[in-house]
Amino acid sequence: MQRMLREIRIAGYGGQGVILAAAVIGKAAAIFQGGYATMTQAFGPEARGGSSSAQVILSGEPILYPYVTQPDVLVVMSQEAYTRFAPQLKPGGILITEQELVNIDKMPTGIRVHGVPATRLAEELGRKMVLNIVMVGFFGAVTNLLDRDALRRAVADSVPPASLDLNLRAFDKGFDYGSQLLLRLSEQGDAEEAVSLESA
Amino acid sequence: MQRMLREIRIAGYGGQGVILAAAVIGKAAAIFQGGYATMTQAFGPEARGGSSSAQVILSGEPILYPYVTQPDVLVVMSQEAYTRFAPQLKPGGILITEQELVNIDKMPTGIRVHGVPATRLAEELGRKMVLNIVMVGFFGAVTNLLDRDALRRAVADSVPPASLDLNLRAFDKGFDYGSQLLLRLSEQGDAEEAVSLESA
Repeated sequence: MQRMLREIRIAGYGGQGVILAAAVIGKAAAIFQGGYATMTQAFGPEARGGSSSAQVILSGEPILYPYVTQPDVLVVMSQEAYTRFAPQLKPGGILITEQELVNIDKMPTGIRVHGVPATRLAEELGRKMVLNIVMVGFFGAVTNLLDRDALRRAVADSVPPASLDLNLRAFDKGFDYGSQLLLRLSEQGDAEEAVSLESA
Repeated sequence: MQRMLREIRIAGYGGQGVILAAAVIGKAAAIFQGGYATMTQAFGPEARGGSSSAQVILSGEPILYPYVTQPDVLVVMSQEAYTRFAPQLKPGGILITEQELVNIDKMPTGIRVHGVPATRLAEELGRKMVLNIVMVGFFGAVTNLLDRDALRRAVADSVPPASLDLNLRAFDKGFDYGSQLLLRLSEQGDAEEAVSLESA
């Protein structure tokens, strides 16, 4: 666990399991990785519209002010969530999207964007409702903020026993998708570098 | 919904449904009663010990600092939670206990204490696991911070459809227990007052 404070916002619409995804990330940091975390959920007019969002802070020390102002990582599972929260992302931050639900119109500068078809991957497992855990796995792979094993144990600790296997498979599917994406990007990066070196 | 900020802490051990109880209260205030609320859960060393706690802030306006320092209302479902959080209660605050799990050793001065055998009432409904919703009902009756109907709708909105009826019955059972308790206390208060007037 990094000592530095990291702020994460997860947003989507009601029923996508935003809060559980946030709680899993917080739990992984604190219970299984020896750090501290807070998860804050705000209820207000926007919740009446059916949208849902949660904030997670990860830290190596107790957290005195548990409010995210500029997230380092933003995970969005709906277009509305993207439109609302993308402008708040910290420069150099990471934007993670449910790529079939979010259309990125204005690409923010200085932000790394990674998309995953989480709903489709969840449907391949037979249960669309585990898309949030697919997102958690993908988040784990592309941010590298938390150990894979800590996240996986936090998933196991947060879901009903009857759906444990399904959720662990969802987590692995999301994580593997993210790892393979990073691998492809790195190969591509190397290739581009090779080309630019050749043309120099 | 009162305009004033109200801070609530709910604490117990893992598996008692502390977080869901907190989320129901926040949701009732914001979604069904036109106010604002935040729910914050901290993960840290204490969570590793199996205890669970959540903070809820209710307000008539957007909440800028979602951290409870001195709760107006403290709901405790374990002895450890009582020992840890009771000293933080605001003077004039309300302490709500699961009375068969919490033994009040030092009665705080200036604090109203109300106990409910939530686990036993839940068991009477056939499912011990709804003790948290019994507590929410009882909280509603003895604090009078939120409308009964808003709380009840928030319960309905927060539990799986398969256990909806059970949870609504748990809510009603807790609420009715609290209403009857207040009624008895008020009759007793009148009686005591009559006695003291007589002896004066």
